[in-house]
Amino acid sequence: MAANSAASLLSVLRPCRILSTGIHLPPAVDSTTIEKAHGLPEGWSLKHSGVSVRHQVINENVADLGAKAGQHALENAGLSLSDIDVLITAGGSFDQIIPSQAALTLAMMPGGEDARCEAFHINTTCLSFVSAFALAADKLQLPGVKYVLVVASEVASKNIGPENWETLTLFGDGAAAMVLEYTEDPNCGLVTHMHKHYTEGIRSAQIPGGGASKCFADYPFSSELHHFQMDGRELLRLTLKYLPGFMEDFFKKGGTTWPEVTWTIPHQASKTGLGIIPKLAEIAPAQVVNILEHSGNCISASIPMGIHELMSNDKIQSGDTVLLCGTSAGYAIGSLLYQHG
Amino acid sequence: MAANSAASLLSVLRPCRILSTGIHLPPAVDSTTIEKAHGLPEGWSLKHSGVSVRHQVINENVADLGAKAGQHALENAGLSLSDIDVLITAGGSFDQIIPSQAALTLAMMPGGEDARCEAFHINTTCLSFVSAFALAADKLQLPGVKYVLVVASEVASKNIGPENWETLTLFGDGAAAMVLEYTEDPNCGLVTHMHKHYTEGIRSAQIPGGGASKCFADYPFSSELHHFQMDGRELLRLTLKYLPGFMEDFFKKGGTTWPEVTWTIPHQASKTGLGIIPKLAEIAPAQVVNILEHSGNCISASIPMGIHELMSNDKIQSGDTVLLCGTSAGYAIGSLLYQHG
Repeated sequence: MAANSAASLLSVLRPCRILSTGIHLPPAVDSTTIEKAHGLPEGWSLKHSGVSVRHQVINENVADLGAKAGQHALENAGLSLSDIDVLITAGGSFDQIIPSQAALTLAMMPGGEDARCEAFHINTTCLSFVSAFALAADKLQLPGVKYVLVVASEVASKNIGPENWETLTLFGDGAAAMVLEYTEDPNCGLVTHMHKHYTEGIRSAQIPGGGASKCFADYPFSSELHHFQMDGRELLRLTLKYLPGFMEDFFKKGGTTWPEVTWTIPHQASKTGLGIIPKLAEIAPAQVVNILEHSGNCISASIPMGIHELMSNDKIQSGDTVLLCGTSAGYAIGSLLYQHG
Repeated sequence: MAANSAASLLSVLRPCRILSTGIHLPPAVDSTTIEKAHGLPEGWSLKHSGVSVRHQVINENVADLGAKAGQHALENAGLSLSDIDVLITAGGSFDQIIPSQAALTLAMMPGGEDARCEAFHINTTCLSFVSAFALAADKLQLPGVKYVLVVASEVASKNIGPENWETLTLFGDGAAAMVLEYTEDPNCGLVTHMHKHYTEGIRSAQIPGGGASKCFADYPFSSELHHFQMDGRELLRLTLKYLPGFMEDFFKKGGTTWPEVTWTIPHQASKTGLGIIPKLAEIAPAQVVNILEHSGNCISASIPMGIHELMSNDKIQSGDTVLLCGTSAGYAIGSLLYQHG
C-alpha cells in the first residue's frame, strides 16, 4: 500500500510509535474436529461462523499465552522486560480472581521476578486492546516513560458450550502483544480515539455467572450461568443502529474519512459483522484485515493479531494510517486511528 | 490542617481537581455477630484485625454499590451522568465474567441507558483506585474531557471463608467514588504517581480459582480455590523489605518529603500494615487517615473512602497535599501524590 503524501498527514494527538508486535497461539483445532465431536453438519462452521481453524489451549492459561506473546513482541523490538516502563494487560478473560491478570502475566514472563514496572489490567472485553492502546499513548507522554508493552490474551474456550453452535465454532484462544514507544516524531501516533456505551445492549452478550452477583458458593456450574451467551441478531441490530453515526463522528474528530485510511483492522466479531465493514466504509475488502477464517474471534486479542499480521508482512509504512474498530459486550463501540511514522 | 504557603507548592505533573466524592455502604455487621456465628473469642476481631464494624451486602452487588457511590459523587458535584466524559470503574471484584464491570455499573446508574461516555474497568486489586486516579488525570489532558468519574466498588464478602479468622473479620464491602475535573490551575493536580511490582509475592495474596486456570466447569466450589488466601506474615516481610526504598524514590520524584505531606491515606490493609505508617513516615498518627475500625479493608474502595472522609469534613484545603499509598496482591506497591487547589 502506497504511503500517503506528506501533505495529507493527519494531526497526531498523542505521539507514539508501534515498535513491534508479537503473537502466541495454542494448538490449532479445525472445524471438522468440532463438527464431528458435537454432531454439527460438515461445513457448518465455515459457512455460518466463517471459521475453518481456531486455536484452543490444552494446558496453557491466559498468563502463559500473554507472556509468550509479550516476549515475542520484546524480541522483535530487541528489548527485554527490564526496558518496559508500563505493562498493560488487556482482555475479558483471566486466570484467577486475585491477583490481577497484569501481575499474573508479568510473573510468567522471562525476567518477571526482577521487573519493577507499573502493571495493570484493563477490561472492556472485545475492545480491551483498543482501550489499552489509548492509555498506553497517554502513559508515553509522561516523563521517563519510553516503552509500554500491551498484551491482549484470551482463553475463550473455557466458557464456550456446545449448546450454541455459533459461539462453539466462532471463538478461539490466543494472545497478541505490541510495544508502543515514545517518539519525538510529531506525525507518528494516536490521531484519535473514541469509545461509547449503549447499555440497552447490556444483556446481548454475557456470561451471567462467575462473579459476586451469582457467586460460585451458591451457584454451581451450569451452562446457563457460566457459558457465553450471544444474541447475534440483537448485536447486529445495535451495530446497524449506532455504528454509522459513531464512525461519522469519529472521522470528523480525526479530520479524515474512512476511504482515506490505509488499513482497517476490525475486531473479528463474526462473519456477518466483518462483512458489513467494506460496504459501510465504502472501501475495498483488501484494505480490511480479515483473519477470522484462520483464528476465529479471539475477543480482545483479535485486533492486535491483525496489527501483527500487517507488521510481520511489512505492510505498515511511514505515513500509513491504521484504523482499529470494533464492538464489545456492554454494548459499546470503540475506534482508534493511528498514523505510522 | 493549615494550608501550605504558596512558596512551598509542589510542581504539578497533570493538572486536575477533585471536585467531589461519594460513598455507599451496605448494612453494617459488627464483630460480635461474626465472632458468635463462627465461634471466635469475643473481642478477637478488634484485637487482631482492628475492625469492630464492617459492611456486607445482602442482595446488592458490585454494580449496585458502585452506581450508588457514583451517583452520590455526582450529586455532591451538582452534575449528572450525562456530564461525565469517562467512567473508570476500579477494583478486584466483579459481578459477572462478561460484560466488564464498567458496563455493568454504567447500566445501573440513573441515566445509564442514555449515557454515551467512554467506560472501562481497571484492576490492580487493592491499588485499583490509585491506578485509576492516575489514568483519569491523563484523560483530563485530552481535548474535550472535562469530568472523569472514578468508581471503586468491592464485594469482598462472597470470597471470604470462616477457615481464616483474619480475612473473615478484616474485609468489608462498600464503594466510594470521585469526580475528577479538568482545571486550568497549574498548582492543582497529580504531582506524581509510582507503581511497582515485586512478583516474588505473586502467591502471597490470592484466590486461586474462578478463572481460566482452574475453570469452574472442572473445579467446583471449594474454600481452598474460591476463598481469599492471605499470608499476612509474608506480606509484612515484603512491605518492610520494599516500601521504605519505594517511598524514598517516590518523594524524590515528587520533590518533597513525607513529613511535608498534609494528609496520608494508606490502603486500610490491616492493623499491622496501618500501624507501621506513622513510624516509617515520621509523621503524627493524626495526619494518617484510619477508617479500618469502622469499615474494615474494602480492597480498592478503602482509599477513596478515606478521601471522602476528608472531603466531607472539609479537611482538604487549597495547597494541601494528599498522599495515597498502599500495597496489593501481586505483590505491588503504589503511591500517588495530589495537591489540592
